[in-house]
Amino acid sequence: MSKLVIVGTVAFDAIETPFGKTDKILGGAATFIGLSASHFNVDATLVSVVGGDFPQKYLDLLASKNLDTSGIEIVKDGKTFFWSGRYHNDMNSRDTLITELNTLADFNPVVPKDYTDADVVMLGNLHPLVQSSVLDQMTETPKLVILDTMNFWMDCALEDLLSVIKRIDVITINDEEARQLTGEYSLVVAARKIHEMGPKYVVIKKGEHGALLFHDDNVFYAPALPLEEVFDPTGAGDTFAGGFAGYLAKTEDVSFENMKNAVIYGSTLASFCVEKFGTERMQNLSRAEVEKRLLQFKQLTQFEIELT
Amino acid sequence: MSKLVIVGTVAFDAIETPFGKTDKILGGAATFIGLSASHFNVDATLVSVVGGDFPQKYLDLLASKNLDTSGIEIVKDGKTFFWSGRYHNDMNSRDTLITELNTLADFNPVVPKDYTDADVVMLGNLHPLVQSSVLDQMTETPKLVILDTMNFWMDCALEDLLSVIKRIDVITINDEEARQLTGEYSLVVAARKIHEMGPKYVVIKKGEHGALLFHDDNVFYAPALPLEEVFDPTGAGDTFAGGFAGYLAKTEDVSFENMKNAVIYGSTLASFCVEKFGTERMQNLSRAEVEKRLLQFKQLTQFEIELT
Repeated sequence: MSKLVIVGTVAFDAIETPFGKTDKILGGAATFIGLSASHFNVDATLVSVVGGDFPQKYLDLLASKNLDTSGIEIVKDGKTFFWSGRYHNDMNSRDTLITELNTLADFNPVVPKDYTDADVVMLGNLHPLVQSSVLDQMTETPKLVILDTMNFWMDCALEDLLSVIKRIDVITINDEEARQLTGEYSLVVAARKIHEMGPKYVVIKKGEHGALLFHDDNVFYAPALPLEEVFDPTGAGDTFAGGFAGYLAKTEDVSFENMKNAVIYGSTLASFCVEKFGTERMQNLSRAEVEKRLLQFKQLTQFEIELT
Repeated sequence: MSKLVIVGTVAFDAIETPFGKTDKILGGAATFIGLSASHFNVDATLVSVVGGDFPQKYLDLLASKNLDTSGIEIVKDGKTFFWSGRYHNDMNSRDTLITELNTLADFNPVVPKDYTDADVVMLGNLHPLVQSSVLDQMTETPKLVILDTMNFWMDCALEDLLSVIKRIDVITINDEEARQLTGEYSLVVAARKIHEMGPKYVVIKKGEHGALLFHDDNVFYAPALPLEEVFDPTGAGDTFAGGFAGYLAKTEDVSFENMKNAVIYGSTLASFCVEKFGTERMQNLSRAEVEKRLLQFKQLTQFEIELT
């Protein structure tokens, strides 16, 4: 089992959907990634920053999942990053109502010494320069560096993004972002171009349509489970990333075959995340439930064709 | 092997894409369905109508694929249905430039006597009353009735559509249409509502995102092959339907397990259709090519998960 460094936001979210709303609840990319990865009982640290308003009970929750929180800087006289969003009726597109960077604005991640030799690094969605600075602290090149990003950085920090992705093994983005980054409509051609930018593996997340994994000429298509109800999609993408990274840290096998499994695990865990507000579902998820859902995923796409 | 009745348009298409354009070429739902189904060497008839301007060479082409054309009425002093469309850069959305119904306006399908006892009927996209009239001519209730439709009929002939779908086993529509027909966003809930309207099986086509097959509480997700290049998407949906129907007519097994295979075959054949203009690719497609593509589909989604 490899050590896992997770970098990203730990935050307050306030969420509104057609079905209900929340006040400030626990959120943030690193939170979702961490809770998801914790299902694999790996030795993971969260590198982040919060303010003095961040409740101890949330840190205790993360610690109770065996996540190391020594890398979460607490800025006592500062406020925690706060995001508020409202989802449309399709439960997919959303408006951002509030973004208060607060302590995130000056975030300088410090990887705890014990984890600077970690084999797996999961760089949650942040400014590419911040993501780079984490890689600079690793004592050796990690076996696997996974990076998540979004179109916002393509718009306002493209050069920095292109710089950091030269140093990574796996990028996770959605289909629109893959098209924006490469100027290509075909995801096959987009993935090929992204390979040339650095990452040997490209995961293109397609929301309700599943995810594609590209590695040279190999392609794998992981389904998304058609759901009766999406209660709150917040954190689904990060939960995917956490499952993906956690599984790979656990199994230490970065072959294409095993990457497929990692994508399936990521999708499986993400399908739980959307069932309740915020992190609620991910806080109380049993191994038995995960295995049952995995079987559902297998039944969803497996077939035995008879050649006629 | 069951006899197969295919009803739909046989037409002229004129197609424009960002890559090129055609004059009037062979098209029409029944044409694409038939060419696709012909890969299974089933005994299929095309029930349609053309004008005096329809070239004999096109009828000869269909006959050369062992498709019975005795049910294609030739209205000597009439003109063949003509559709012209232009695809946008995404090669998915399109504008209809011309629709000349011509002989289609008075189409009264007559099923050839030899086929009125066919076990499988594929009702291509037409006015629901026209589709109904075909079912009225069958001497016994067919084992399997598959119906394709579109949002146009939901807008202007909804009662007729609801009437005919009471009589069918499988409906094929896209995700937007499933949502419009049922007023539900979740495709799981939409499929359940559509079951109550008649069809035991619901195929929801999602274009580049694949297809979902619903049957009671069972779901199957067939991928779409991520393509380097979509040259002309015209007829892809009908090619899917033809592969689906042809495979089921050949194997005579309408279990859910076999329906999955039918969906895979449909997707496989549709992936060829888009490689060239119109029917060109489907006219010259070998068994070896189809089998190779089937293997690609299998590799695309199959995985062996190890429970950790």
